[in-house]
Amino acid sequence: MNTATSGRDGGEPRWLADDEQRVWRAYLHATTLFEDHLDRQLQRDAGMPHVYYTLLVQLSQACDRRKRMTQLAIDAKITRSRLSHAIARLERNGWVRREECLSDKRGQNAVLTDEGFKILERTAPGHVEAVRQALFDRLTPEQVGQLGEIMRIVAEGLQPQDSDADLPWLR
Amino acid sequence: MNTATSGRDGGEPRWLADDEQRVWRAYLHATTLFEDHLDRQLQRDAGMPHVYYTLLVQLSQACDRRKRMTQLAIDAKITRSRLSHAIARLERNGWVRREECLSDKRGQNAVLTDEGFKILERTAPGHVEAVRQALFDRLTPEQVGQLGEIMRIVAEGLQPQDSDADLPWLR
Repeated sequence: MNTATSGRDGGEPRWLADDEQRVWRAYLHATTLFEDHLDRQLQRDAGMPHVYYTLLVQLSQACDRRKRMTQLAIDAKITRSRLSHAIARLERNGWVRREECLSDKRGQNAVLTDEGFKILERTAPGHVEAVRQALFDRLTPEQVGQLGEIMRIVAEGLQPQDSDADLPWLR
Repeated sequence: MNTATSGRDGGEPRWLADDEQRVWRAYLHATTLFEDHLDRQLQRDAGMPHVYYTLLVQLSQACDRRKRMTQLAIDAKITRSRLSHAIARLERNGWVRREECLSDKRGQNAVLTDEGFKILERTAPGHVEAVRQALFDRLTPEQVGQLGEIMRIVAEGLQPQDSDADLPWLR
């Protein structure tokens, strides 16, 4: 809403100025279109949405291609329930399997299978090309640096250190 | 994947360099956490996800608080099926109603109801505060300008003018 409405909690709401509105709208458009674009590309090439792909990448980069489920949720910035759902589906595809943690009987690891690794090898070239064409090819090196710094600041701000912070992987 | 794999289509894949990897990871972390944050805030305050809220905002800013469904999908950058689902839900809440287009019997408008407008008035102050705290308050004015320009470039690149482009609102 552009119109001024009096605030609920006393103070006047800090409405966005016109130029801030434009930045915010551009952010929403770019991020929405980009996520749709990557989902489509990965669905077409490997029958999986983008978030599943990022889980396979995480596992491929981990020691022995395995990671604790709790750590995987933190690294992918998603809720435990979304992770469980994704891993169950990847398990049915034969790309991931679960195993008990040796060091902690209550914990579980997700493990990338050889078949999962092959899927990633086949899919990665098309995915990186899609990311390049949509993002890196369009920006100057200076803009790439600016984007990295801005996104680092935003991501850090959304992960406060308070123990009662409402973070996805704690749900 | 960081490891070099030979390309499928002849040429060597253009893997991301380490600094590009860091930018890409920061982008994924920030956008994933931000969307989760806004969804949580809006679910808590109004029982709806972020995408529903953006539809109400679109309608509130339109002439006579109504917009053609086809245009609404374009403006929100979402698929027709996602829009239909969202509007059906907003209709059940009494916040939106559908009506036939007077000028085109095949078309439909979505109309913001008075109750929908009230929900928006109640919810907007908390939402804009969440956006400010997570984004605008953390960046310098220079960075806000850089972000706007970068996001505008990315959004434009993802909406090619070709008639066969795979755009969400054509699905």
